[in-house]
Amino acid sequence: MVVKVYGPAYASPKRVILCLVEKEIEFETVPVDLIKGEQRSPEYLKLQPFGELPVIQDGDFILYESRAIMRYYAEKYRSQGTELLGKTIEERGLVEQWLEVEAHNYNPAIYELTIQLLFSSKFGRPVDEKLVKESDEKLGKTLDVYEERLSKSKYLAGDFFSLADLSHIPFTHYLVGPMGRQHMIRDRKHVSAWWDDISNRPSWKKVLELCKTPFG
Amino acid sequence: MVVKVYGPAYASPKRVILCLVEKEIEFETVPVDLIKGEQRSPEYLKLQPFGELPVIQDGDFILYESRAIMRYYAEKYRSQGTELLGKTIEERGLVEQWLEVEAHNYNPAIYELTIQLLFSSKFGRPVDEKLVKESDEKLGKTLDVYEERLSKSKYLAGDFFSLADLSHIPFTHYLVGPMGRQHMIRDRKHVSAWWDDISNRPSWKKVLELCKTPFG
Repeated sequence: MVVKVYGPAYASPKRVILCLVEKEIEFETVPVDLIKGEQRSPEYLKLQPFGELPVIQDGDFILYESRAIMRYYAEKYRSQGTELLGKTIEERGLVEQWLEVEAHNYNPAIYELTIQLLFSSKFGRPVDEKLVKESDEKLGKTLDVYEERLSKSKYLAGDFFSLADLSHIPFTHYLVGPMGRQHMIRDRKHVSAWWDDISNRPSWKKVLELCKTPFG
Repeated sequence: MVVKVYGPAYASPKRVILCLVEKEIEFETVPVDLIKGEQRSPEYLKLQPFGELPVIQDGDFILYESRAIMRYYAEKYRSQGTELLGKTIEERGLVEQWLEVEAHNYNPAIYELTIQLLFSSKFGRPVDEKLVKESDEKLGKTLDVYEERLSKSKYLAGDFFSLADLSHIPFTHYLVGPMGRQHMIRDRKHVSAWWDDISNRPSWKKVLELCKTPFG
């Protein structure tokens, strides 16, 4: 059964697709156009009642929330493709910790910057400069903690690539590209080396080839 | 080795303590006073570099982020106490989905209400009425989706109690108590039955006996 992933143009579904590529799992994608509001159609809301991306269909099994979907496939196909959860239960604990840090300390700020700097113009809305400033500051403080952490271990959860690192890639790709904030990564030596490492994985290059973004 | 949990007075650490009680794991607590700013002391920042609660120490192993800590113990002591992750890999997937919904669709609104309605006065700050209104609306919309879900299954992830339900308890206890918003639960028949079920577990009564809240 081929996994169907909804909304491949956007960053959160790209987390899932990147995980599937690392795990060597076959998938197909189903476009959802946020600008046209397709995520609020009755058909889509039957799959994802909050009207958010992504959702997957795997036979009769439907699952949403990108990090939940990644955990499911990383666990189900543990011995196939890249091990993404660490080897021991303590390593998995640290993967979960840094995945939560990504969700609560990193993503809210970078998501807000994405909305303000990349999506506002598409919806014809003005940019909220106060929110941009607050988000830049919050993201910078989080990256300062990352810099300290990555001075001690090659990846966030330890000396192994994991879901915790992977989950940062799609939105950080916007940050260093269309958002023009490459300096936030480059001004921090260890964060910069980490970004070079994780963004040069063949899996991410494949995702970028397969799934266009709305920002070219 | 007894697990040390920091910050037992507050809601996020109570998630962890509740999980430890359900899993029959011994623990002790270490007070952290947020009003006095103890979470920003150099000693605390060595354990939790973002200055947030909770963090645990288990011998040499240090872990933060409440949902990561809960997953770690629920997995490590899988066959001890209450099974909190579901039985099959698909059930665990749904536990993860609803735990993410709690983190992203439920908690941000109820956390903001907690800050505005319960903590602002302790810090001598005015209540931001616009934020309160937005948070009430957001939480209400999320609870509407819960009502639909809980009309079809007894608990969020299926017909079994899990981390997904447990994670809602400490902040919802504030909502129906000191925040005076019991109607948000009671006006929704299935949410109301679910709340009665999960908040009457002996584990939660034990947590409330052991760990006082700053709101009596």
